[in-house]
Amino acid sequence: MSVSEQFSIRPDVNAPMCPSRGVLEHITSRWGVLVLAELLSGSRRFSELRRAVGGVSEKMLAQTLQTLERDGFVNRYAHAVIPPRVDYSLTPLGEEAARQVWALARWSEQRLELVEAARERYDAARA
Amino acid sequence: MSVSEQFSIRPDVNAPMCPSRGVLEHITSRWGVLVLAELLSGSRRFSELRRAVGGVSEKMLAQTLQTLERDGFVNRYAHAVIPPRVDYSLTPLGEEAARQVWALARWSEQRLELVEAARERYDAARA
Repeated sequence: MSVSEQFSIRPDVNAPMCPSRGVLEHITSRWGVLVLAELLSGSRRFSELRRAVGGVSEKMLAQTLQTLERDGFVNRYAHAVIPPRVDYSLTPLGEEAARQVWALARWSEQRLELVEAARERYDAARA
Repeated sequence: MSVSEQFSIRPDVNAPMCPSRGVLEHITSRWGVLVLAELLSGSRRFSELRRAVGGVSEKMLAQTLQTLERDGFVNRYAHAVIPPRVDYSLTPLGEEAARQVWALARWSEQRLELVEAARERYDAARA
């Protein structure tokens, strides 16, 4: 019996033990969001991803990519060349997730001023 | 000078110090996602939210709601009654975020079977 079959009525992210919560957490993780959004522009080498996603460590990027690959969101392609070259790209499933988190990332940038104004009002009311 | 004015060219979630990354992290946080998605159905009392979002502690829910309120995503309304009653609801800005994370939550539930199949393939190839 697979894990999801234990929740065969309907997956529910609000249920603490439902594995769909883990799926949601992988695509909304700090680095998962940014890696998926970056790969929406096309396949990237590890070093390109590391430059694009500011502040990510080598270890966290490798771990994030492995999680996304295991979930079926990312393809890892190791070219048979020396020096080694590895490309990462989105699967069709990963592209579905990436389009959504890309939109969230853009929304966060576009709404930043409104959020900062709200924070100033909140803090002023409590000063 | 507000924090965002230091990034006046263009907010960029890929820049480690850009405050838009914090906005994205608040709406995609483990409990932030689930609270926003739940409030899309209408205003909720604290105890109702705690029941709806399985596994959240009282402390984490209070902290999540405070962060979302400060960011301008959630309204907190304390009724002048005894015993005290506090309702939480989405602001128009919060509703924009909530619609997106709600869609991500539903997508995670709908795609769970595909993700579990991908994990089985991944693990089998490495067994």
